[in-house]
Amino acid sequence: MCELLGMSANVPTDICFSFAGLMQRGGGTGPHKDGWGIAFYEGKGARCFHDPNPSVDSKIANLIKEHPIKSHVVISHIRQANVGNICLENTHPFQRELWGFTWTFAHNGQLDKSLFDLELGTYEPVGTTDSEYAFCWLLGQIRERFPKRPDNFAEVSAFIHERCEQLRKLGVFNMLLTESTHLFAFCGSKLSWITRKAPFGEASLTDCELTVDFMKETTPNDIVTVIATVPLTDNEEWVALEPGELVTFVEGIVQ
Amino acid sequence: MCELLGMSANVPTDICFSFAGLMQRGGGTGPHKDGWGIAFYEGKGARCFHDPNPSVDSKIANLIKEHPIKSHVVISHIRQANVGNICLENTHPFQRELWGFTWTFAHNGQLDKSLFDLELGTYEPVGTTDSEYAFCWLLGQIRERFPKRPDNFAEVSAFIHERCEQLRKLGVFNMLLTESTHLFAFCGSKLSWITRKAPFGEASLTDCELTVDFMKETTPNDIVTVIATVPLTDNEEWVALEPGELVTFVEGIVQ
Repeated sequence: MCELLGMSANVPTDICFSFAGLMQRGGGTGPHKDGWGIAFYEGKGARCFHDPNPSVDSKIANLIKEHPIKSHVVISHIRQANVGNICLENTHPFQRELWGFTWTFAHNGQLDKSLFDLELGTYEPVGTTDSEYAFCWLLGQIRERFPKRPDNFAEVSAFIHERCEQLRKLGVFNMLLTESTHLFAFCGSKLSWITRKAPFGEASLTDCELTVDFMKETTPNDIVTVIATVPLTDNEEWVALEPGELVTFVEGIVQ
Repeated sequence: MCELLGMSANVPTDICFSFAGLMQRGGGTGPHKDGWGIAFYEGKGARCFHDPNPSVDSKIANLIKEHPIKSHVVISHIRQANVGNICLENTHPFQRELWGFTWTFAHNGQLDKSLFDLELGTYEPVGTTDSEYAFCWLLGQIRERFPKRPDNFAEVSAFIHERCEQLRKLGVFNMLLTESTHLFAFCGSKLSWITRKAPFGEASLTDCELTVDFMKETTPNDIVTVIATVPLTDNEEWVALEPGELVTFVEGIVQ
């Protein structure tokens, strides 16, 4: 299995604190040592870092932890391989373009082999994971249903939800998906989120000795939502999604 | 204008030496301070680093210079903006998937506005540069002509050459393009390459005080070709491509 981390915020925010917790699970406090990746959105642009090496001793992960990249939307993943070798093309998150937007996807779970019977549309996997195949299928479905970007994104959310339910029938399927503004979080078995806004307090990481006082790091109008397979802090109330639930976040707020 | 750097090699090779020279031109010895990017292939997988900040003082560029990533194929670009704002989505290289391969593209030059009249196929630009539009058009054309990956890549090279000639009519168009194995280098006005193989010698950078003795860094069977808009070393013989010429490299060798 793997671990997911997502962020949706109304101001460019760095994810150093949460990422510091997550990367400990990549070969440190957790067994997810088979690579990691992270995508940061700045407007429509996305920069993605991929590393097939354990995050806990990755120089690139260290750079990200220490060199804040401010972003509205982030998706990150650390991998414990099941389907597909440990190599760069099998490292999440995966990206494809639709409607002139870069879509980013990361998956936690494992799907039945019958997944590979689903017919693909425009998008083909580069690697051999079930996750990338599922993403290519899902995005192909969205493209077929919505050849142009619709104004009403509630319809898109509902459609994605429907297709995610279909994938959930094939095994464990928790996912994060975004096109730069909307962050779609689907819970097949486990996924939790927390929204931090004024009045901000202190948070302390479960996976290492690190506490941050968000009051010192933020302004009163900031809204920052963090999503993770397993809560990253031990002194805050995280909301657990129900299996089969999809939540769409825009600027940190549930739609 | 911008600067291009490409590499094609028969063994995983780091590009630290050439990159050290190139990044000096990003705000140091050259005016290309409007962002930079680099894509490294490891098998079919590609990792890409993008930064809209000048390469000369980029922490990420520094990491790449000091932390060798070994790769068969590399495409890098530093930007001096003309069409399109300075922002992440306008930062080269650009990537899209075709046939289950990640294609990477970088462009030096500037194209006439009539470029935007060319009809796009499957791929749409995320940003607003002429370069990304040209790439989307070119890859859409390749997809239309070759819906499946052909066995005979000479046909693909000839087709890309033809379409590049069409783009060259619209202005200055030097480009590097790859799908992980084949590196296509098209010269509209300037592009040079050099192949380093046994017996290896010394090379010294034009843009900073750095000399490397490749004999110490290589094995006798290594073949490494480097391509750049302007030669990066001052004590070696680079081959200048003719305007209108396309060269395809596989494992460092001209096809």
